[in-house]
Amino acid sequence: MKHTVTVINNGVKREFTAEHGENLLKLLQNNSVNISSPCAGNGTCGKCRVKIEGRTSELTAQEAEKLGESALKKGYRLACRNAVYDDINVILDDINNDRNDNVSIMVSGKENKIEIDPIIKKAYFEISKPSLNDQQAFTEKITKKVNELFNNNECCKKISICPDVKPDIMRSLPAILENNDYNITAVKYLDNIIGIEAGDTSGKAYGIAVDVGTTTIAGYLVDLINGKKIDTYSCINPQKSYGADVISRINSTMVSPEALDELNALVITCINGMISYFTDRNGIEADNIYAAAFAGNTTMLHFLMKLPCKTLAVSPFIPVTAEMQHIRASQLGININKQGSAIILPSVSAYVGGDTVAAVLASGMHEDKDISLLIDLGTNGEIVLGCKDWMYSCSTAAGPAFEGANIRNGVAGIQGAIDKVTIDTDIKYTTIGNKKAIGICGSGIVDAVAEMIRTGIIDETGRILDDDELESDSAKQYSERVVTTDGNNSFLIASRTECDCDDDIVITQKDVRELQNAKAAVAAGIRILIKEAGIEIKDIAKVYLAGGFGSYIDTESAAIIGLYPGELKGRIESIGNAAGIGSIQVLLSEKMLANAEKVKNMIKYIELSARPDFMDEYVECMMFE
Amino acid sequence: MKHTVTVINNGVKREFTAEHGENLLKLLQNNSVNISSPCAGNGTCGKCRVKIEGRTSELTAQEAEKLGESALKKGYRLACRNAVYDDINVILDDINNDRNDNVSIMVSGKENKIEIDPIIKKAYFEISKPSLNDQQAFTEKITKKVNELFNNNECCKKISICPDVKPDIMRSLPAILENNDYNITAVKYLDNIIGIEAGDTSGKAYGIAVDVGTTTIAGYLVDLINGKKIDTYSCINPQKSYGADVISRINSTMVSPEALDELNALVITCINGMISYFTDRNGIEADNIYAAAFAGNTTMLHFLMKLPCKTLAVSPFIPVTAEMQHIRASQLGININKQGSAIILPSVSAYVGGDTVAAVLASGMHEDKDISLLIDLGTNGEIVLGCKDWMYSCSTAAGPAFEGANIRNGVAGIQGAIDKVTIDTDIKYTTIGNKKAIGICGSGIVDAVAEMIRTGIIDETGRILDDDELESDSAKQYSERVVTTDGNNSFLIASRTECDCDDDIVITQKDVRELQNAKAAVAAGIRILIKEAGIEIKDIAKVYLAGGFGSYIDTESAAIIGLYPGELKGRIESIGNAAGIGSIQVLLSEKMLANAEKVKNMIKYIELSARPDFMDEYVECMMFE
Repeated sequence: MKHTVTVINNGVKREFTAEHGENLLKLLQNNSVNISSPCAGNGTCGKCRVKIEGRTSELTAQEAEKLGESALKKGYRLACRNAVYDDINVILDDINNDRNDNVSIMVSGKENKIEIDPIIKKAYFEISKPSLNDQQAFTEKITKKVNELFNNNECCKKISICPDVKPDIMRSLPAILENNDYNITAVKYLDNIIGIEAGDTSGKAYGIAVDVGTTTIAGYLVDLINGKKIDTYSCINPQKSYGADVISRINSTMVSPEALDELNALVITCINGMISYFTDRNGIEADNIYAAAFAGNTTMLHFLMKLPCKTLAVSPFIPVTAEMQHIRASQLGININKQGSAIILPSVSAYVGGDTVAAVLASGMHEDKDISLLIDLGTNGEIVLGCKDWMYSCSTAAGPAFEGANIRNGVAGIQGAIDKVTIDTDIKYTTIGNKKAIGICGSGIVDAVAEMIRTGIIDETGRILDDDELESDSAKQYSERVVTTDGNNSFLIASRTECDCDDDIVITQKDVRELQNAKAAVAAGIRILIKEAGIEIKDIAKVYLAGGFGSYIDTESAAIIGLYPGELKGRIESIGNAAGIGSIQVLLSEKMLANAEKVKNMIKYIELSARPDFMDEYVECMMFE
Repeated sequence: MKHTVTVINNGVKREFTAEHGENLLKLLQNNSVNISSPCAGNGTCGKCRVKIEGRTSELTAQEAEKLGESALKKGYRLACRNAVYDDINVILDDINNDRNDNVSIMVSGKENKIEIDPIIKKAYFEISKPSLNDQQAFTEKITKKVNELFNNNECCKKISICPDVKPDIMRSLPAILENNDYNITAVKYLDNIIGIEAGDTSGKAYGIAVDVGTTTIAGYLVDLINGKKIDTYSCINPQKSYGADVISRINSTMVSPEALDELNALVITCINGMISYFTDRNGIEADNIYAAAFAGNTTMLHFLMKLPCKTLAVSPFIPVTAEMQHIRASQLGININKQGSAIILPSVSAYVGGDTVAAVLASGMHEDKDISLLIDLGTNGEIVLGCKDWMYSCSTAAGPAFEGANIRNGVAGIQGAIDKVTIDTDIKYTTIGNKKAIGICGSGIVDAVAEMIRTGIIDETGRILDDDELESDSAKQYSERVVTTDGNNSFLIASRTECDCDDDIVITQKDVRELQNAKAAVAAGIRILIKEAGIEIKDIAKVYLAGGFGSYIDTESAAIIGLYPGELKGRIESIGNAAGIGSIQVLLSEKMLANAEKVKNMIKYIELSARPDFMDEYVECMMFE
């Protein structure tokens, strides 16, 4: 017996078929539905909550404990504790409405800077009807016309039909010509024709740009005719079931030979879900999407291409490839136009990926004569220092603290996450979407710790002082908020009574240590690059903060915790999901696509694990001062 | 119940599985065994004879009639009248030992003229082991090394890994490197890497060159390291079941939508059979065959690529493509190395195909300052006139007479075919393989008719004179040989008593008319080209005769029947299966491959059906004078 499970996500419905008794979480994950389960379906993390309409399993004690009364009242259940015994509706938390939507504004801002010259171009034209005096073969007549139309005057770059798609094109050509009175539309990708379409389709050409992050996958639908961003999408990377970080996922491929196939299938299915979402919501055909640009860290791009990853994980950390790839999307199983192209942005090294290259493109630092510092904070922290003449980069294992992971009450930047904290005469915070707080996200944690330092609740070694150790007046008034959690001091940000959760939201001593490690790694990385480049801090004209977290961080707070040298404070610019923006730019500009390779080749990578001085810097940067 | 049918062909055994009761002819044809059945299995042509060891069907009256006593005694049966009821051996007539083998000598001759610079090259090398100071990605390290090794100094032509095979290569790369201590062999096809192999395979690189004729498919196995031709193969084109000529085959694709798929499958299966034959006999791996060059008429090349052919068959005769194609062989279903390339030679027009371009290459006329005339006689007659500065071509529907088809006792150039005839004091003939005569092939027919003209048995209008009309002494002595067949005069060449067949071998009046039509078409085509080029016959320095028939024709006889102007008699050179030779040269020389495109672009095609003067010339050329 089979049942239909209708998943309602942000108003969009998708239907899946489930076996009778199939676990709901597994079903959702197998279909790349955005759902998180850090405990891998064991019912202990409480994060896979969904609303179920229709027959559910018996309520378990674990669900009662993890969900709490208020959530249960609203109809929440844990997907991992429910099986499908009937046709049901599953309503997801509205995670598509998360912060990534705000990125749109920044994307628009950046788009103005580039000249629209899309990598996909279309031309509608008529070829002359054949006669005994005009017997040229169809492909040659079309190629000649295409070269005239695209006004191609560089002798070396004759436009031709891509060999690998040519048989397909040729097989359909006679019928297309005959049925459309020799009126056709040619689809050009860089210097090659990848499609010949019946009649006039010249108004329809779309691309998708995708930033495949370890934690989050963010995608954009772009109109390649007018350069406009049409829609955005973001979801949790479904590979999360293989571990939160790249190393655990790579390890799983070394343990089980099928894991690489499965990790690849997860990301591809997720991207295909994104494409369905885009086409359904915007009334376009997947056949009219001709290009998909992918940024992401080197490991994510390896998984996307199903490349063995072992050498990425073990010293000396070698990628199978770091070049830009142009792969037929259908070869990767990506459901856009069958002759469409997947562009994999080039990486610099095993730990400075295509996302960093894309972020550099978005920042424009590669064209600037002044020196810039780019800090891309995701699960790892990638740092690039340089200008139009030279660039250095490194990668630091900042850990996922900035993304709210490994933090007691940490959550991603979703609705209800505390994103800003001030400690003054009172403790004030804001949440995303102005919802009741459900946890604290990266920018909130940085704010909280910065404020705790400023007010003297934390000392320069990072210790949360006992309530009787508090010295300043501003600190003393919060002595009651210094509580004990897991045997150590912690600081209460929001009590359960004011939250939409069953636990107080606190910053624990362990949370502070996580943040200290993360910021020390980044700060030490910056120091090494400055040293390598032979410059001084004052020579840096601009600091770009990129990444899901980097964009929302309070730059003052970041300076207080010592993420970057305090004297750069006035030169900070947040550039949002710069990897996504850079990928969009690659779709929209042949020059930017060429620039991606230039930037990749220009950046000199510094392997911190090979630098004996890195550990010294790291230890020095650990303190709050 | 299934049975094993072991087919023994020229000593080589192949095994097929048959359903109980399956028709033997169908089984053989479905497996692309060389077997001819002009009557399409109706038991009326008697050409599908095989020897069967083991249980056969009951002897039918049709078999008794068509095979005749002597053949029955030798164990021959008609495959079409037998079904498989047990494990059997089927011994084929030795058609692989046909004339095509002689071509080998000519191939060797021509090979000396070209500098061996194969389109596939291999390099064995070691890449440096990665370390923290040498973290370059594998693909980039390999690409760099390959560019150094192949000493590539043309700036525009950086060697890179072909995008469409790159994912496959990258997926296997880490294991190959790890298991072989970073020693690999790169396979280069023109300016691209198409394979990375484990360890040292640099000594093994093969290619096949195939001339896909309407009637015969001839293939060559070539060693791409030393340029040597290793083996040859020829068989009847199994598409014959869809008609003997290109028009009937194209018509069948217009009647039934599946016919194109089937015609394509027939030729592909046949080529794969050829590849198995080559690999089995020569102890090589199909994986070490990296290139397959295909010549053939435009229709055959369309079938090979599964392109719709309708526009080839109807005026104004337009090919889907006439360009040179480089298609991944696996995309066409050809079982060589999965990343190997199929090279489809360029065509000039719908009726001047890649075989003619290859023949021009083999003749060398495109590099000659003197004017040459190339006549490629197959089922059609293609004619090229020109020199290194200009070329004209046309195609004439010469019909299959030169190949022994539509001739009463005509056979292909197989063992036992009468191939030379002289009428002097006595009638003398030779047969291929010095076997007892079984029929007469093209060169024999031309000889016979030429001798009949010379001796006055045929008058200048082509009429076979009645015995009482014979005037000259030489004619009179053969008056008894003028007999009546099908109500018209015919001339006895060999009586059944001296033959290995149950019928006299004669030249009928209808045979003479067939030949007259054929030679008139070719001669008229030559006149049109001469006129178009504005030259005179005396300006032609050389005449090349190419094609299965062209190579064996007696040049004196051809002049007598008026195939070409008599004054050119001393300037004739037979160049064998020039299409096959040209294809081999394309495998062996990057320059020849480039030349193929140059020749194609240089040849100006003259459409005879658009020339009002063609019919006048044709009528004028009809006479024997």
